[in-house]
Amino acid sequence: MYTWKDYKTWLTSLDQPVPTGLESPEQVAAFEAALFCKKQTGYAFRLVSDAEPEEGYRVSKEQKGENLTEITVRGGRRGILYGTYATIFALVSGVKLPEGLQKPAFALRMLDSWDNMDGSVERGYAGRSLWFEGGRFCYETERILQLGRMLSSVGINVLCINNVNVQPPAGELIGSALFKTAAFAALLRPFGIRLMLSVDFAAPVRDLHTADPLDRNVRLWWKACAERVWQAIPDLAGFLVKADSEFRPGPSSYGRTHAQGANMLQEAVAPYGGTIVWRAFVYDCKQDWRDTRTDRPCAAYNLYRPLDGLFSDDVILQVKYGPYDFQAQEPISPLFWGLEKTRPGLELQITQEYTGQQIDLFAMPPLWEHIFSKLRGVHLSAVAGVSNLGRDANWTGHPFAALNLFAFGQFAWNPEAGAEEITRRWISLSGYGDDEEMLTDLLLHSGQIYQQYTDPLGLCWMVRPGIHYGPDPWGYEFQAWGTYNRADREGVGIDRTNAGTGFINQYPPQLASKYAHPATCPDQNLLFFHRLPYNYVMRDGRTLIQRIYDDHFEGYEKVKQMQEMLDKLHLAPEDADIVRNRMDMQVSNAREWRDVVNTFFHRLSGIEDERGRRIYP
Amino acid sequence: MYTWKDYKTWLTSLDQPVPTGLESPEQVAAFEAALFCKKQTGYAFRLVSDAEPEEGYRVSKEQKGENLTEITVRGGRRGILYGTYATIFALVSGVKLPEGLQKPAFALRMLDSWDNMDGSVERGYAGRSLWFEGGRFCYETERILQLGRMLSSVGINVLCINNVNVQPPAGELIGSALFKTAAFAALLRPFGIRLMLSVDFAAPVRDLHTADPLDRNVRLWWKACAERVWQAIPDLAGFLVKADSEFRPGPSSYGRTHAQGANMLQEAVAPYGGTIVWRAFVYDCKQDWRDTRTDRPCAAYNLYRPLDGLFSDDVILQVKYGPYDFQAQEPISPLFWGLEKTRPGLELQITQEYTGQQIDLFAMPPLWEHIFSKLRGVHLSAVAGVSNLGRDANWTGHPFAALNLFAFGQFAWNPEAGAEEITRRWISLSGYGDDEEMLTDLLLHSGQIYQQYTDPLGLCWMVRPGIHYGPDPWGYEFQAWGTYNRADREGVGIDRTNAGTGFINQYPPQLASKYAHPATCPDQNLLFFHRLPYNYVMRDGRTLIQRIYDDHFEGYEKVKQMQEMLDKLHLAPEDADIVRNRMDMQVSNAREWRDVVNTFFHRLSGIEDERGRRIYP
Repeated sequence: MYTWKDYKTWLTSLDQPVPTGLESPEQVAAFEAALFCKKQTGYAFRLVSDAEPEEGYRVSKEQKGENLTEITVRGGRRGILYGTYATIFALVSGVKLPEGLQKPAFALRMLDSWDNMDGSVERGYAGRSLWFEGGRFCYETERILQLGRMLSSVGINVLCINNVNVQPPAGELIGSALFKTAAFAALLRPFGIRLMLSVDFAAPVRDLHTADPLDRNVRLWWKACAERVWQAIPDLAGFLVKADSEFRPGPSSYGRTHAQGANMLQEAVAPYGGTIVWRAFVYDCKQDWRDTRTDRPCAAYNLYRPLDGLFSDDVILQVKYGPYDFQAQEPISPLFWGLEKTRPGLELQITQEYTGQQIDLFAMPPLWEHIFSKLRGVHLSAVAGVSNLGRDANWTGHPFAALNLFAFGQFAWNPEAGAEEITRRWISLSGYGDDEEMLTDLLLHSGQIYQQYTDPLGLCWMVRPGIHYGPDPWGYEFQAWGTYNRADREGVGIDRTNAGTGFINQYPPQLASKYAHPATCPDQNLLFFHRLPYNYVMRDGRTLIQRIYDDHFEGYEKVKQMQEMLDKLHLAPEDADIVRNRMDMQVSNAREWRDVVNTFFHRLSGIEDERGRRIYP
Repeated sequence: MYTWKDYKTWLTSLDQPVPTGLESPEQVAAFEAALFCKKQTGYAFRLVSDAEPEEGYRVSKEQKGENLTEITVRGGRRGILYGTYATIFALVSGVKLPEGLQKPAFALRMLDSWDNMDGSVERGYAGRSLWFEGGRFCYETERILQLGRMLSSVGINVLCINNVNVQPPAGELIGSALFKTAAFAALLRPFGIRLMLSVDFAAPVRDLHTADPLDRNVRLWWKACAERVWQAIPDLAGFLVKADSEFRPGPSSYGRTHAQGANMLQEAVAPYGGTIVWRAFVYDCKQDWRDTRTDRPCAAYNLYRPLDGLFSDDVILQVKYGPYDFQAQEPISPLFWGLEKTRPGLELQITQEYTGQQIDLFAMPPLWEHIFSKLRGVHLSAVAGVSNLGRDANWTGHPFAALNLFAFGQFAWNPEAGAEEITRRWISLSGYGDDEEMLTDLLLHSGQIYQQYTDPLGLCWMVRPGIHYGPDPWGYEFQAWGTYNRADREGVGIDRTNAGTGFINQYPPQLASKYAHPATCPDQNLLFFHRLPYNYVMRDGRTLIQRIYDDHFEGYEKVKQMQEMLDKLHLAPEDADIVRNRMDMQVSNAREWRDVVNTFFHRLSGIEDERGRRIYP
């Protein structure tokens, strides 16, 4: 008898590739259903397109005889595809079929790829780009269909294919290479996936010597551009824009606001139902480290709060979850509460830039569960995740990093989903059901352990500059990026209370007052909000310095325990070496983090570890 | 009337390019002499080839009438070329003609280019490679002839054209691209310049799956290789080898010594008069920073001293001037005194890797004068300098960096030459004679000032990792390169005396005893040899920490004074912007160094500046 354990991972959980020639989500759904029924005898699918919301579906089940169960998926065009995948996943992983109307919480569930046309992937740790190489599109059609199936099956409906840092020749994606972009879009269309394109705000400069959003010719340039682009790709989701950020050009060059810049673009794409997604990742990346008044986490709120209400209703302002930049632990960006008349989108990072680079384990579900629970009162309009995919055979570098893509899709569909439930489901779908308890435990704690042995109490930025991997406590200390810990002989951290930079005032009063006092501030953000002396006594009675030492000693021990657990797992042959080799590297990394961070603080504080463990001189 | 001030710099001090078609040094000499006489009427040259040493010459002068002076240059084949240039330079700069037999102190006066075949130049700050691009030779013939003239006119006689880190396809320079290498060699031959090629010790692996120097087939492989190479380039100077160094393969992979590796190669090139230059830059580049016993400066002596006497007489062991790696100030490598039966070559760095990268001014003559004076008792066999040349219009990035190339040639010819004399001569030849006093002062102090605002008392390695530019006090502190300052609350530095790593014992007793005590150790090496508390009282009565503060405050002030002096110079129009813009950058850099280094030590020591100057928190 056929068993689902034969399948390598959920990524390829259906063993036959989707054939080219399928032209619509309904056809893909029918194909997948037929394939499933052929494998799992005893099931029949009935797919009914009806007037449900386009992405919604209902599933019902009827016993048609002793050996036949008929499953009806009723839904909108894309709904029946999502319903089909959900049903197959449920049956395979042995959970209950979804009951009642299922529909996604967010209309825009986007995967942001930072792929460059030269084939490199910015912050990519899974090989080169799946679709670019040598300055042009270059892909295996089969693999792009697999990609479509994979993204669709987890509920993602938009794929941004090029890096937000738009470098030549990426401008040609909406220019001379537009017909190729359209051909690529066509491959993903049957999976209900629409493309998004990152554009360069300064693109009109080439023709007009200006990109001033209030210049009539610039507006006409973008209108003509949108007309041409949507003619080629009628269902294009929109344009993603990184402007006035980290050396990218933007409206400020012309004395215009971001609202003026975004609205001008929105006006151009509106006739076609397109959306402008405007990134809010803007700060002074040329800060003088001597300047203690400027505080980078304040930047986005200070810029966008005064513009609240000035953005067009259709523009989405995409905000990174934390006020810094995808650190291993940050508080939630206060800008989410500051946008009352603007549509905010949440930007998460699936790729593990600051979180282990797909070498160290960092399962995201607990972090994301935390973020979504914090944001429960905020009306989000979209969720985007920076992709962790690449040309590696296993797609994600580390086989377990596939969980993060899976979980991203699940949370984007339903932000109330539970981290544990998602993790268990992924384990089951991936053929690791026999090790479910151990692997669930391992994965659910991996992020916390990573935080413990790297980032002391939310201090952030103790990583090697540029590569963002490995410990370097003062690597960013004297640079222009606004990322300082200001450790000295007495203490460490930035005071972001009223007595300091005042950053906490950007939060609603209840949060602000919680963060304002070290005694009520969560431990994992303690050194994000406060500057404290090493002998500060924490809630549990330990001093700050002792807690830092303890965390780093314990973090390393926990990694070694993870390694022991891993050794007991029944890993798939194609995963075993990769997983174990990377675990070896993680053990070595954790030791390095332990010793570098402890030595750093010991040299500064001169305080010994109470328990007499070895701190190197 | 024609004046030499019309000429831009000594680099192009003869305004007509050397024509192709000249086939020998004698012909080039005749051409240069004729050109000079045409410009400077009243002179006649007589060139006499005779039995003098090939590179030696004598110059004599005879008044042939009121308006005619006949100058006789008598010398060996290349000697008459050097004599002609020396005469022209003397007449142009107004100094006396050389008297008596002139001959170079070293037979091998080599410029080492770290050019990669992709066109990049490792540690190059003057543009891309002059002869490689896109994986192949790519050059303007005219420019290579100019290069030949330039190198020859300063006395350089060997050019190593490829990076010692031999990466594909550079192996093809002695393989499929050999005929192109030969063509390039032919362009430089008339200037008395022979090529040297960097080779990969592991090259035979491709054919033989081993590079074991005692393997018979490996020996035959290199013999066949040498035969082929010297057939194509009969005057090739030899092979330069970086083995067992910074991830390069070497004899240690096969359990063989460096002497066995080098001798095997020397045996292959001996029939053709070739020389193996074996670099002694070997250390553990995977050191654990926790390991306080291993001390990188000890490495070369520990490796090569026991091999002294085992190298073939013809092998040259090329030793960097200091035991680290071209830091702004280091003591002389003790290995020079440790090689009693081996031929040592001295490696200097003309390109300003750690010394300002041709942005900050660092005139090398005083440093080199110091090095040669220290090495007076050592019998050097060769002098090599890592090139500062590139495709920039002015060749050296900063126009004043041309002094360093000029000075390298002068010192390689005569190590007794004076720094001031060389500097004045270069100034005069470069058309800055009217500003000679000011510019001499500026240049001669530039290195000392750079040392003062960067490297505290010879501590070394406080630079940004990788790029080696700008301050980063702990950038290298927790890395694997063996480069630590181990600063803590009490003090800073590595104890390299008997009580510490024992490095000083590698020096002859007289030097060792001088370095052994902080009271007798030169200030500029104080923190190289000693670990000292911040309150250590120096000879002048200042504490160590106060001296660090003073040096960095003063260093910055001196850079501002340099800027004021520069503003008064009559810079050539094509130099003015480059020189002034870079000076602006240097002022900004010096401020950064001042504040980062002072803040670093203030955070650690907690000690205030006695004079109450601003140290940022």
